[in-house]
Amino acid sequence: MELPDSVYYGIQTERVRQLSNVSGIPVITYPQLHDRLAHIKKAAAKANKAVGALDGEVADAICVAADKVLAGGWEDQFPLDMYQGGGYTCVNMNMNEVLAHIANENLTGHKGYDRVHPNTHVNMGQSTNDTIPSAMKLAVAPVIDALVVELEKLHRELKKKQAEFADVVKVGRTCLQDAVPMTLGQEFSGYARFVERQIPVLKGLRAGCFELIIGASAIGTGIGSFPGYAEAFYRYLAEDIGEPVRADENFFDGMQNDDFYVAVSAAVKLVASGISKIAKDFRLLSSGPRAGFGEITLPSLSPGSSIMPGKINPIMPELMSQVAQQVCGNDVAISMAFEQGELEINVWAPTVYKSLFESFSLLTKALPEFTTRCVAGIVANRAACDAHARATLALSTVVSAVLGYEEGVRVSKYAHEHGVSVKDAVLRLGIMNEADAVSLLDPLLLTDTAKMTRALSDWRKKRVTK
Amino acid sequence: MELPDSVYYGIQTERVRQLSNVSGIPVITYPQLHDRLAHIKKAAAKANKAVGALDGEVADAICVAADKVLAGGWEDQFPLDMYQGGGYTCVNMNMNEVLAHIANENLTGHKGYDRVHPNTHVNMGQSTNDTIPSAMKLAVAPVIDALVVELEKLHRELKKKQAEFADVVKVGRTCLQDAVPMTLGQEFSGYARFVERQIPVLKGLRAGCFELIIGASAIGTGIGSFPGYAEAFYRYLAEDIGEPVRADENFFDGMQNDDFYVAVSAAVKLVASGISKIAKDFRLLSSGPRAGFGEITLPSLSPGSSIMPGKINPIMPELMSQVAQQVCGNDVAISMAFEQGELEINVWAPTVYKSLFESFSLLTKALPEFTTRCVAGIVANRAACDAHARATLALSTVVSAVLGYEEGVRVSKYAHEHGVSVKDAVLRLGIMNEADAVSLLDPLLLTDTAKMTRALSDWRKKRVTK
Amino acid sequence: MELPDSVYYGIQTERVRQLSNVSGIPVITYPQLHDRLAHIKKAAAKANKAVGALDGEVADAICVAADKVLAGGWEDQFPLDMYQGGGYTCVNMNMNEVLAHIANENLTGHKGYDRVHPNTHVNMGQSTNDTIPSAMKLAVAPVIDALVVELEKLHRELKKKQAEFADVVKVGRTCLQDAVPMTLGQEFSGYARFVERQIPVLKGLRAGCFELIIGASAIGTGIGSFPGYAEAFYRYLAEDIGEPVRADENFFDGMQNDDFYVAVSAAVKLVASGISKIAKDFRLLSSGPRAGFGEITLPSLSPGSSIMPGKINPIMPELMSQVAQQVCGNDVAISMAFEQGELEINVWAPTVYKSLFESFSLLTKALPEFTTRCVAGIVANRAACDAHARATLALSTVVSAVLGYEEGVRVSKYAHEHGVSVKDAVLRLGIMNEADAVSLLDPLLLTDTAKMTRALSDWRKKRVTK
Amino acid sequence: MELPDSVYYGIQTERVRQLSNVSGIPVITYPQLHDRLAHIKKAAAKANKAVGALDGEVADAICVAADKVLAGGWEDQFPLDMYQGGGYTCVNMNMNEVLAHIANENLTGHKGYDRVHPNTHVNMGQSTNDTIPSAMKLAVAPVIDALVVELEKLHRELKKKQAEFADVVKVGRTCLQDAVPMTLGQEFSGYARFVERQIPVLKGLRAGCFELIIGASAIGTGIGSFPGYAEAFYRYLAEDIGEPVRADENFFDGMQNDDFYVAVSAAVKLVASGISKIAKDFRLLSSGPRAGFGEITLPSLSPGSSIMPGKINPIMPELMSQVAQQVCGNDVAISMAFEQGELEINVWAPTVYKSLFESFSLLTKALPEFTTRCVAGIVANRAACDAHARATLALSTVVSAVLGYEEGVRVSKYAHEHGVSVKDAVLRLGIMNEADAVSLLDPLLLTDTAKMTRALSDWRKKRVTK
Repeated sequence: MELPDSVYYGIQTERVRQLSNVSGIPVITYPQLHDRLAHIKKAAAKANKAVGALDGEVADAICVAADKVLAGGWEDQFPLDMYQGGGYTCVNMNMNEVLAHIANENLTGHKGYDRVHPNTHVNMGQSTNDTIPSAMKLAVAPVIDALVVELEKLHRELKKKQAEFADVVKVGRTCLQDAVPMTLGQEFSGYARFVERQIPVLKGLRAGCFELIIGASAIGTGIGSFPGYAEAFYRYLAEDIGEPVRADENFFDGMQNDDFYVAVSAAVKLVASGISKIAKDFRLLSSGPRAGFGEITLPSLSPGSSIMPGKINPIMPELMSQVAQQVCGNDVAISMAFEQGELEINVWAPTVYKSLFESFSLLTKALPEFTTRCVAGIVANRAACDAHARATLALSTVVSAVLGYEEGVRVSKYAHEHGVSVKDAVLRLGIMNEADAVSLLDPLLLTDTAKMTRALSDWRKKRVTK
Repeated sequence: MELPDSVYYGIQTERVRQLSNVSGIPVITYPQLHDRLAHIKKAAAKANKAVGALDGEVADAICVAADKVLAGGWEDQFPLDMYQGGGYTCVNMNMNEVLAHIANENLTGHKGYDRVHPNTHVNMGQSTNDTIPSAMKLAVAPVIDALVVELEKLHRELKKKQAEFADVVKVGRTCLQDAVPMTLGQEFSGYARFVERQIPVLKGLRAGCFELIIGASAIGTGIGSFPGYAEAFYRYLAEDIGEPVRADENFFDGMQNDDFYVAVSAAVKLVASGISKIAKDFRLLSSGPRAGFGEITLPSLSPGSSIMPGKINPIMPELMSQVAQQVCGNDVAISMAFEQGELEINVWAPTVYKSLFESFSLLTKALPEFTTRCVAGIVANRAACDAHARATLALSTVVSAVLGYEEGVRVSKYAHEHGVSVKDAVLRLGIMNEADAVSLLDPLLLTDTAKMTRALSDWRKKRVTK
Repeated sequence: MELPDSVYYGIQTERVRQLSNVSGIPVITYPQLHDRLAHIKKAAAKANKAVGALDGEVADAICVAADKVLAGGWEDQFPLDMYQGGGYTCVNMNMNEVLAHIANENLTGHKGYDRVHPNTHVNMGQSTNDTIPSAMKLAVAPVIDALVVELEKLHRELKKKQAEFADVVKVGRTCLQDAVPMTLGQEFSGYARFVERQIPVLKGLRAGCFELIIGASAIGTGIGSFPGYAEAFYRYLAEDIGEPVRADENFFDGMQNDDFYVAVSAAVKLVASGISKIAKDFRLLSSGPRAGFGEITLPSLSPGSSIMPGKINPIMPELMSQVAQQVCGNDVAISMAFEQGELEINVWAPTVYKSLFESFSLLTKALPEFTTRCVAGIVANRAACDAHARATLALSTVVSAVLGYEEGVRVSKYAHEHGVSVKDAVLRLGIMNEADAVSLLDPLLLTDTAKMTRALSDWRKKRVTK
Repeated sequence: MELPDSVYYGIQTERVRQLSNVSGIPVITYPQLHDRLAHIKKAAAKANKAVGALDGEVADAICVAADKVLAGGWEDQFPLDMYQGGGYTCVNMNMNEVLAHIANENLTGHKGYDRVHPNTHVNMGQSTNDTIPSAMKLAVAPVIDALVVELEKLHRELKKKQAEFADVVKVGRTCLQDAVPMTLGQEFSGYARFVERQIPVLKGLRAGCFELIIGASAIGTGIGSFPGYAEAFYRYLAEDIGEPVRADENFFDGMQNDDFYVAVSAAVKLVASGISKIAKDFRLLSSGPRAGFGEITLPSLSPGSSIMPGKINPIMPELMSQVAQQVCGNDVAISMAFEQGELEINVWAPTVYKSLFESFSLLTKALPEFTTRCVAGIVANRAACDAHARATLALSTVVSAVLGYEEGVRVSKYAHEHGVSVKDAVLRLGIMNEADAVSLLDPLLLTDTAKMTRALSDWRKKRVTK
């Protein structure tokens, strides 16, 4: 098998490259895995040098090679497809080969393995089985970071809207049926708080990215490594990437199980689903403009119909829900991959990497569009909101809270049957005088817990003493 | 191990009974499996007798015993839990033991295995591996039948509503935004047709329930059976249950794969999801009553709130969606069970049986409630529907269809900015005269394809010749 | 908004192009949708011309433009991302704009909409809501065809292996425990038959690809189209693509529900899962080479370890299972998208298109690798197979079949406790003479239903008469 | 509507009882929800009394009634089915009615609502929307506790086995192919550690069970409650149940989102899947007994076949995997339920409660069976393990670690082609002398990281200096 002069990968990579191009998407599309793997190779070379297992010149050449790769521009040298049998054995080999060729070139002026062999030297003391899972775990930290940045932006925008809508009274809805009044700001405070709560969850998972199984080599026993290597490795890697990397408490567990990704995927699914819920609320609240809820208006981004002039669709909320659907599907794929692990190593890394990083990527790219093009531009339709708040039969709750449920039912029934407001009903039924009705059935009052409970309590006393 | 006098099962059943009661739900909760298994035992006894392998008296006694069990009242003798390791080996043994005891009692006056042994005689020529999958496949037919009955009822009710709502004009909605007019009857015709289409799909699957693997015995080779047995078996079983049972073309495939249930589950999921979609439409259309779409009213079944008097919730539609969520979850469990099959037999029958029959049962029981307590009582709110149909900006489509899209946009924009109807906009803009506006923008006209296309065509000619 | 000279799409496309690039994968990556959409535009132009709604010159120019696009090389003009809010409204608009520009160029020598307007003319009588779902349905047929071709190849290869392994006797396994003998050819016949059975299922679904909703326009009522258009459309499209296209029986149902894709996805999931099961069997059967089942050897494709020299992994089977995991995940996404449809149209087409066509693509590309690089090269390890067939305690089934279960248990127990073969056990226990043992316990005999049942029957007679 | 004398529930319960019996399983099958709800009613009565909203005698009577219900034996009074439209509105009403009737009986000597009204008094200041979600969240704590107890037992048993198998050397396997040696104890240490790690995760989730939304009443604004009520409520509830209950930071978020259950379900899925992986390893390692891996023997629990005498199946591991399949399916149902929440409240509580508590229950009941009947009785087959450890070609890793990968390949190839052990290969190839081969290729040495790395390092020095 001959390889063109321009390539730095070797025969093992080429063989797998020819075998499979199933997705048409190279692993390096999500570059984090290769990036972290290059850092691992560098730290391993330093550690092997430090313990006297690797010739200093060779080790240094490997480090220089890794730095070159880390500097970028080598994507073509990592051509392997997202899906491959095995747990990315060949991704490890690909990195070994590229680094060996660059290192040789540095030392000898030509590519080849004369001085630096991909397996013997670059992979010294390592195995696919400890390097790939470790690189993948490390790779999760930056994608969590990127997602957190977008969640923070969304949170800020939602908080702004919460403040902006603080005095927009509207009707709450449960089971899509009119309930009691609330402010649009309160509704948005729920959205904001949901987003806010996800951030520490993701940060907590990020902290789990640094327990690695380097030192386990093939199956956990560390075969092929030399005394002191593992300890040195973690020292060098920590220095290099500035993260608190450390050895997993039990390498056998660490190799058998990749449950970490199931936990991360569950969190990403939860984030995506929760924001999809918010997005769907936006669709409901902006339904209309004339025959729907019509409580908010979303920014108009593009014509919504090729046939109906003037129709505008909630495309950003819909984008978020589409992404959530895919994220939910990916979560099932990842969960299956974990459950199907067997014996010493879980070989389904390709499914996990593709699905999990696609989920992160979709969500992280969709969020800023949603935040800036949708949330930031939401406008409240105050008149419609106010009308809804005054129309709801659930205002009768005020009556039942003080005079008992049956009395509330009587009011509600009257209002419904006569097609009048609850305020009119209580007046007609003689339950309140005009002044009380105006003040106690004021929707805005009913959104303020402290004032409302006090007002109802006062009216109660007045009624009881009467 | 001692067993009380009252039990007819034996030591093998008792052992597994003590081992596992994980779900607390016996397999026989869905009685179809045991029912079909008893029929299989009977046909096998007849066949073994016919080929001279089984003593006639013994065979007859087994048949009598099976008939007793089939007559009902023996549920307590089949105590095993839904979940058991293995592919319901012990369900087969339980049946063998009960039939052996009854048969012995018949022949000898006492329980025991003296004359009829559960494995040697009742199970002759059979294995769990061919009887259980065959019984399970047969068991699907009656639950399909029961579901079809309920779908037919729902279909009839939806057709009635389609007719009843044939002249209720309302606005269509896409992306929850106001679109062009349609009738409520047209909307319901879509619901009716969806339900109708599922019936032949389910019947098609039903026809697949009769390709069995009896004769395969332990792993497909038929070990333990005698010449002529399998042919005789199918003849007797067909006679007995009146269904076109036949041997699977390839027993090895038939044993390795239980994909039939994945296909059935997919169909059930599709039915449940589609009806959930209809149910959710009902929630949307009945949202309000004052601050929502308010186009239909659902029957009031129970107070919808413990605190808000007069609130009524769409509980039947919600029930349908809850059932659909569980059915979708069960579909994943069933799919996993199939994918995890290995070598000669899929041992995950318990997962499949529990999940699939739960899905059928939930759906079959929820449907008549939905049909009679919800669909049958839906009332159209004609005034609201009419107002929506007249308000929609999408009426401008009439203009763009004849005068081009840009002209439609101009109308739509004008109506939106001036807060007027499309009819008023075309009048003010001088695009139509009053008579044309009245007739061409009549929402009811716009729901009748033939009349509408003719009217628009006529107006077009008038405009062009002008 | 200014567009460069080189582009043929217009402002509506550009706007959405800027809005969203969430997946980084254009819709046209799976080119079938655009291809079928261009055919639809062509047939619509012809139909509109035929009914006198569209100027003949304009119609012809649209047809010429569509043919140009169909001839290929215009991928850059369709830049929109896989995920977009709305149900691919802008994909329809993109096609309208490109065709309008080309058609104008043809008619006037310059791009622009002077003579041919994207909405007024190219989209005449149509809507995103009827063209996109119709194009997507049509798009499924060619991907089914491509998958069927690969399944047929796999089937042929498995049949070859079935024949090649017809006389390789081995042990069957249920619950991973040694069972009775079978041939490796029988095991493969099950694999072959599973694959074979999927082909008519897929072809049946293909036949469902031609019931379209063109003529429904915006929401099913056909607003904006002219008399005779729909009939003419189907005639022209059928002529053009040579498929039996026809109008859906009920347009409202056809627009509300995209359950067709759920059914297709279920079939694809079933195919993928079933082949994953076969792939996993290959992993089990080839486990070892020295400490596993070792009954078959898979072709060696690449070094299986960066650290353990000589290790070879079953990478093709693993590739199939990885693909199956993703396909199962995608099925959940597609099912969710269907269930979340609402009112007149299901807007989750992007989720469905991305997931479903990815599933088809992954499977269709992985299968030929699996077939040629794995299945075709499988070698049976006859010695190991034979040893396993002779070692299994389940050979005692021969005894129990004739002399009753308890006698079988005695033999099995003896063989187990004394660590001898069943043959030695029956000899030592005096149950068979040497000649009978040799002939009746011959594993090959026990894989041939006809010969085995006859032989056992004969021995039975001999024993009984004795 | 008349109710029999014996019932303590009222008309609202009866109405829903008649409406739906879809699952045939009452909600109270998992009794935790009702139990916690009764505690909530008690604390609410005390709080309402404390703030002067509720008559002291009435409040006390409600507390006495709640204590009666909590004492048990009232299951028949809570007859409602697991599935109901709405978010368990009627479960709240059922509790209100039963407590009202008991309280009235206490105060007046007869049932009825004269003194104590279910809505006005028992439900004072509350809503289904704050009580049910709060009760459900509290209900998760005891089921987590029960699961943790079983995980601790399993962990202890696995640790025992880890110790027992500390010196059983065997071969590790990756991709089911022979890898380098490890001890069976090391393999089990991975299992033990996986289980151990889940415990703090579950305990962390438990701590989240006490952030409640009592005080939010209908939609988060607290309508219907009186000043000071919420503060008093949390004080009384904390006293009563001894848990750190507190108000959610944002009631609107707390009502909108039930993501807590998605997170809990993800953890339960992860536990179930990981233990299913262990269970499947047991199946693999015990495969045989003669034609499989045969490295361990599981306890024999019941005959594994109705036809093959002496066959024993791994039924406990299979039970664990069946449970895991259902738990994975339930996770999808729960995730869907969350994603489909809308506006002020998620109404899919029934799906969540049924699926989540079924998952907990299945897992918690299956685990002790698995622990005591399977894990505790596992026996190592030392001879088979030892033979596998000596046979593996991956012992050549020792050579490649010191002399380079290519030399390792040469050894592995030689051993494979000549059918000899690696030890024989290195001797024949003159790579090691007999003494070195014996000591360096000793499988037990190769499982001890410290000793092995030292030994290889020493040999390396010897070789290099040579």
